[in-house]
Amino acid sequence: MSEDNTVFIGKKPVMNYVLACLTLLQNGAEGVTIKARGRAISTAVDVAQILIKRFATDIAVKKIDIDTEQVKSNETGNLNNVSSMIIQLGK
Amino acid sequence: MSEDNTVFIGKKPVMNYVLACLTLLQNGAEGVTIKARGRAISTAVDVAQILIKRFATDIAVKKIDIDTEQVKSNETGNLNNVSSMIIQLGK
Repeated sequence: MSEDNTVFIGKKPVMNYVLACLTLLQNGAEGVTIKARGRAISTAVDVAQILIKRFATDIAVKKIDIDTEQVKSNETGNLNNVSSMIIQLGK
Repeated sequence: MSEDNTVFIGKKPVMNYVLACLTLLQNGAEGVTIKARGRAISTAVDVAQILIKRFATDIAVKKIDIDTEQVKSNETGNLNNVSSMIIQLGK
């Protein structure tokens, strides 16, 4: 799966990301990778579940990984540990 | 792994749950299962990462599952779909 089929989850409404994933799949992608950090992780799970259960019932969760990333704070310049998650969906 | 070694993640501070997991492990549990729903999912990932990277470096993620649960709203009585997550940690 190429890096291009990745959707990064942020603070937009959930359905924006669902639509982004669906667009990738309808353009011939074999699968989609959903990436999120921090509070957006629960949104990433929502996106995956809505996709699987409602819109793209032919795809399933292939792999879920969790990790920690170091992010530099814009305010203090300190390095903070932030949890990250990768959900791979495929046929 | 018995159902007793399960920690449900809610709205308390992250370290409360880390401590709960550590207590289970020090009382001889082979592993711990972390469960969360909705917004608590990102906290669950934080708990798992803090445990693995800082306090219990001999354990690792065995399995991660995501699912959807139907929860009845106390206010409206409607059934709402809520994402859920289970993280299994073990040696």
